[in-house]
Amino acid sequence: MSRPASPPKPDSPDKRLDRIRVVLSRPRHPGNIGAAARAVKTMGLSRLALVAPENFPHPKAFARSAGAEDILDGVEIFTSLDEALNGAIFTLAISARCRNLGPEALTANDAADEAISIAESGDVALVFGNETSGLSNEDARRCQRIVHIPANPDYSSLNLGAAVQVLCYELRCTAFRNIPKGEEKAKTAASLIAPDEDIERFYAHLESVMTMTGFLDPARPGRLMPKLRRLFSRVRVERDEINILRGILDAVEKKIGR
Amino acid sequence: MSRPASPPKPDSPDKRLDRIRVVLSRPRHPGNIGAAARAVKTMGLSRLALVAPENFPHPKAFARSAGAEDILDGVEIFTSLDEALNGAIFTLAISARCRNLGPEALTANDAADEAISIAESGDVALVFGNETSGLSNEDARRCQRIVHIPANPDYSSLNLGAAVQVLCYELRCTAFRNIPKGEEKAKTAASLIAPDEDIERFYAHLESVMTMTGFLDPARPGRLMPKLRRLFSRVRVERDEINILRGILDAVEKKIGR
Repeated sequence: MSRPASPPKPDSPDKRLDRIRVVLSRPRHPGNIGAAARAVKTMGLSRLALVAPENFPHPKAFARSAGAEDILDGVEIFTSLDEALNGAIFTLAISARCRNLGPEALTANDAADEAISIAESGDVALVFGNETSGLSNEDARRCQRIVHIPANPDYSSLNLGAAVQVLCYELRCTAFRNIPKGEEKAKTAASLIAPDEDIERFYAHLESVMTMTGFLDPARPGRLMPKLRRLFSRVRVERDEINILRGILDAVEKKIGR
Repeated sequence: MSRPASPPKPDSPDKRLDRIRVVLSRPRHPGNIGAAARAVKTMGLSRLALVAPENFPHPKAFARSAGAEDILDGVEIFTSLDEALNGAIFTLAISARCRNLGPEALTANDAADEAISIAESGDVALVFGNETSGLSNEDARRCQRIVHIPANPDYSSLNLGAAVQVLCYELRCTAFRNIPKGEEKAKTAASLIAPDEDIERFYAHLESVMTMTGFLDPARPGRLMPKLRRLFSRVRVERDEINILRGILDAVEKKIGR
């Protein structure tokens, strides 16, 4: 009997991010192009495209990119949005404005979910308008979906680089979400935690020192120990830390003289 | 004590956002201060504080704020991080670096959840380091939690304004999301939390008692205090608990004889 074919393995998060291109439509300030390049690279994306930039290449773009020059070196420049979207199977227009005519709007978070899932099988483009007028209605309509970044309704206009940063951040978070994160790390952390019996010895020691100083009256202990247990049980105290705490208690005992 | 008939209504999202202050520690470039102001305002926050800014006020800050001048007009300037954090019950250090000794790191998303829930009952501060060196270890340790913005491990340094934008975006999304279950519980818990300055006084007291007993050698302090800070910053220590801990230290002091 043949086994059912197992579902194909999803692409790595990085591979999916590589299929997403950030498109700036008619950007005006070269500094913002640099900021967008930096945002793209910090989030592990790699593709930046420009439609009819006013000023590019420009030293200000390289200055603001702060080490993301490779993104700027690889930038693709087009004369029309149509060309920039060529080959993409999913296109998103990022817009602060509500539009009556455009397609139904997604939040940045929902857009990232869709984009990452579609990037399994093809290219995705995110289109950002320019700094003064945003995205034209024509450009917005050219895209399959409109994306809104939730914002203060009285002051909703993000800086272009900041808007690119938020979208790329959402894409990275989404791409890496279902990956079992740091199982190894969790394992190591667990091995550092003090065993229960050491913690009990610490409580006994603490109780004895508190009695010695007169802070705890064994005849009328009240809820002092339960309260201290509640405090330390909320942290998972590590071996190293128990040693420090016991060391402090030892030093107090020695100073007071048993 | 009589119970309230119905649980109190949670504060409006805007009210919670108003309790969150963005603190820039030693920012160098006034343009980034302006970008941070814009990021703060677009996400509906209102409070920006600066610790020892290199260049402020400065026309570049106003230029880059692009309409968020009211945030810059209301900016609070301090000479030390301690002052800037005064009165906050929850303090978060935003850092790209992994630190061995700092408190356990949160993602931006988890940090926003905690911050918004705590902002029901008190002030929260988000601390960002400067553009060249990030946050100093000292500043990071001064905060209760470290926050990482998920990023490309090979190029993880976001522009300062972009980092502020991402955190403020997460805060807004969280504040306006459906009221999470068990918020009432979190609210009660938050109102019990010891304010930051009380926790600092506890550390100072602990340090003095450890010195008195000879456990801590002020000439060679090693990593003792950072390790203890890391331990206690993982719990959100409550007022009542701080009183107990301070009481123990008092009793030890009295017994040893000051």
